[in-house]
Formats: sequence, structure tokens, C-alpha cells
Amino acid sequence: MRNKTVTSAPAIILVRPQLGENIGAAARAMKNFGLSDLRIVAPRDGWPNEKAETMAAGAEDIIAQARIYPDLPAALADTHRLYAATARRRELRKPALTPRELAGALHSADAALKTALMFGPERSGLENDEVALADGLIHIPTAPFSSLNLAQSVVVCAYELWAGQQEAQPDTSLSAHTPPAAPDDPPATKEELGGLFEHLERELDTGGYFRTEGIRPHMIRNLRSLLTRASLTSLEVQSLRGVVRSLAEGRPGFSRPDS
Amino acid sequence: MRNKTVTSAPAIILVRPQLGENIGAAARAMKNFGLSDLRIVAPRDGWPNEKAETMAAGAEDIIAQARIYPDLPAALADTHRLYAATARRRELRKPALTPRELAGALHSADAALKTALMFGPERSGLENDEVALADGLIHIPTAPFSSLNLAQSVVVCAYELWAGQQEAQPDTSLSAHTPPAAPDDPPATKEELGGLFEHLERELDTGGYFRTEGIRPHMIRNLRSLLTRASLTSLEVQSLRGVVRSLAEGRPGFSRPDS
Repeated sequence: MRNKTVTSAPAIILVRPQLGENIGAAARAMKNFGLSDLRIVAPRDGWPNEKAETMAAGAEDIIAQARIYPDLPAALADTHRLYAATARRRELRKPALTPRELAGALHSADAALKTALMFGPERSGLENDEVALADGLIHIPTAPFSSLNLAQSVVVCAYELWAGQQEAQPDTSLSAHTPPAAPDDPPATKEELGGLFEHLERELDTGGYFRTEGIRPHMIRNLRSLLTRASLTSLEVQSLRGVVRSLAEGRPGFSRPDS
Repeated sequence: MRNKTVTSAPAIILVRPQLGENIGAAARAMKNFGLSDLRIVAPRDGWPNEKAETMAAGAEDIIAQARIYPDLPAALADTHRLYAATARRRELRKPALTPRELAGALHSADAALKTALMFGPERSGLENDEVALADGLIHIPTAPFSSLNLAQSVVVCAYELWAGQQEAQPDTSLSAHTPPAAPDDPPATKEELGGLFEHLERELDTGGYFRTEGIRPHMIRNLRSLLTRASLTSLEVQSLRGVVRSLAEGRPGFSRPDS
């Protein structure tokens, strides 16, 4: 049996944020609602960013401790569960949660799982390839024809997580989506999952699986998405890599990879 | 019997806001969560404000329709229920609600009541004299030693009202605080209540009730606060004015007021 005690506070990942003001406002919202792990992927205006520091007003420590990454896989390598905030409906089959449902899901999740919430750039939002890496989508309910800005989306999510921690939340439907792993087989980190993706895609490339270059991105996105949805454990990732290796082994042009 | 259907959308009153950016961000948050009645009391940088328009991004209509007032009583004259967002504890005896409890209270309130939520200036927050006019306080739960900025506070409140409208909310304790008025005796507007305050205080001044000028503001604040807490109806306000008139009538120096 596993503990269902205090959930570890999720990381906030800002993917290619454009405005320093929004980074600062996000940090301030995090500080207010007990979050501290800020990760920034390829900030448009570089780092450090003076406007981010000014807007943080009291959350300078969050800004000072923020980690900067060149790409999304690096930012989420040590996480186990990833949620993507997105205003648009996506064709990807992912469970969609309101911020309140997310709070309930995290409350009932295993505290040993490292969770991250990611938010896309102000203008365009997250790319489909990025959303494909998420275990679930966060949809903030709003009036029609509206859109929250980046920092406001972070405010609402962080607030709900905090409010959910203050009052005992009942389990939500997502706990069914996240089957508990056994103690000796922890959930795979996103880095392990990324290793599986690369391994699989390399072998598919070698075997000519993708008929045309045009179709490749779409198929890869769907593969990554469905593998993410499986909530794989570490051992399951190893097993699947064994499966890929085994399938590829007899093919013409096969060479045993290092891992 | 009175209807308990859809609550009329509350007005948002920004009291002496300093930064146009925050006015714009508040307008954007309102738009996202189905609110449109923005009232601004004595904005520091005047009106119109270019930065407010820029930050509104999609909520220009809210900015264009915003009404500007020289003082708070003018801004809330037509309202029946007023809630003050405040981070500090106040010595005034007022019911304090979280944004979620506020959503529940508004949901179960009479739709004919015009409600307003007011937010103070960025640096200092609302004055005690302003808070005294409120029927209830809004406390946004945050981590210790933190403070939300003005626009973020509006985001959280507007979000909760919207989320509360989407899911049926149970009645909360505040419905006890707000006894339903009879159909032929509607709740007093804040303008009517303000008329009572002025009438009473004028008579108290005439009678030398306030021993020293130093003690006057504090005593007035407490009087206004307790009269507000009574959730008076229109008829009750008239009755109380009759009481004040009657008590004052025989005094030396009394002259019958016009109203």
C-alpha cells in the first residue's frame, strides 16, 4: 500500500514565455499559493529578466531559484505527471480537467510522484507536440470568446491547488486514470519515457515506418500521446524498450543500440 | 416568496487604483468570467488610461463602458450588498468569506439584489472607513507572508463566481446573515443607507455626541459598520431616520431637516 498524504507541490513550467512581466506575475502567484518550483523553457527575452524581477514583488526568491531549460524534455525529465494548460480543444485523446478537478486529482495522487503543470507562450499556446507529452489537459472554464492571459491562468491553477489543499477534497475520476504503481515499480519519469520515445522512433525511422516525411510529425505525436496515456512504470518502460529491441533485431540494417 | 434563480452579475469596484495595467488586467479577468460592470473610484492616473486599454486585450468593451466616480459612496449608490476584498484582518465585526463561500452566498442570494465587490489600491488596500461600508469581507486564502496583486485578486474572485455559477452550489452560512426581505419592502440601497448615516452623524455632531474630534472617525466607522451589518430594508432605513429625527427634535438648536 502507498501513502496518500500530502502531495508534493507541483512544478510550474512556462514554455517559451514572451513577456518578463508574465513570468514575474506567475512567480508572485506561485508564492501566494505555496508553490516554489518554477521552470522556464527558452524564455524569449533571455534570462535573467529585469521585468520579471520587478513584477515578482515579494517573490524574488522564486525568480532567483527558477531553472532555465533549452527545451521542454529537459524541463520535465524528473517529473512523473504532466498537465498541459490549454484553451483550445485538441484532437489528442487526453483526460481534460478543470483546475478544481486537477486539485482533487493531485490531492488523491501518490505524494511520491513529481507533478508539473505547463503553460504555453502568450500568443500561440502550446504546440500539439508539447501537449502530446501531457498526461492530462487543464481547461479553465471561462465565458465564450474569452482568453486568460498566461499569468492569470497560473493564478487560477495555483489558487485551486492551494484551496484544494486547505479543504479535504474527495477523490475525482482521474484517480481511475492513474492506476497506483507497486512500491517496487515506481512510475516512470518523463526522462525514462522520453528514452522510450526516442528508441522507438529511431527504430521506426530505420525500418521506414513513416512512409513520408509529411506524415511523420503527426504519427509521432499520436504515438507519444498514447504511450503517455498508459501511465507507464519504470519497469514497463524497460519492458517496452525490450520489445522494440526484440522486434527490430532481425531486421536488415539493425545494429544493437547501447541502451 | 422570492426567486432564487440566477444571481445578477456583481459589479467590480476598483477604489483608487494606481496602475492602469492592473485596471486592464482586471477588465480582462472580468470578461473571461462573464462580468461587465466595472466601476473605478478616483483612478490615480486619470481616465481614460492607455495602459489599461493595452492590458485589457480583448476586453476593450469593459474598459469603454467602465464608469468613473469621484468617491466610493457615488460608486455604490445603487447597490444593495457590498463585499470588501482585504488581506488584513480588521477590527470591524463583519462576516469573512473565502471567494468560494462568496460564490455560494451570491448563488443563494436574491437575484434582485445588486451586489458589488470592491478592491483597494495596490499599495495600501482599502481604508477602514471604506471597509466599514461593506456587508462582508472577502479573504483569499494564501500562503503566509504573501499578497496577491490587485488584478490577481480580481481574477480569483471572478473565477470563483464563474465556477460557482457553472456548478450548483449549496447554500452557505451567509444566507443566514442575509435575511430575505418581504416583496413590498426591498433591501435598502447603499444610497439610502448613506442618507441614514449622514442624517444620524449630523444630529450627533449637533448634539455634541463626539466628545473629541480625535475619537470621531473611529466611532463613526463603528456606527456605520453595525448599521450595515443589520442588512436594513428601505422601510427600516426610513424608520430609523424617523427615530433619529424624533430623538433630536426636542434638543436645543434643533431645526427640522429637509429630509
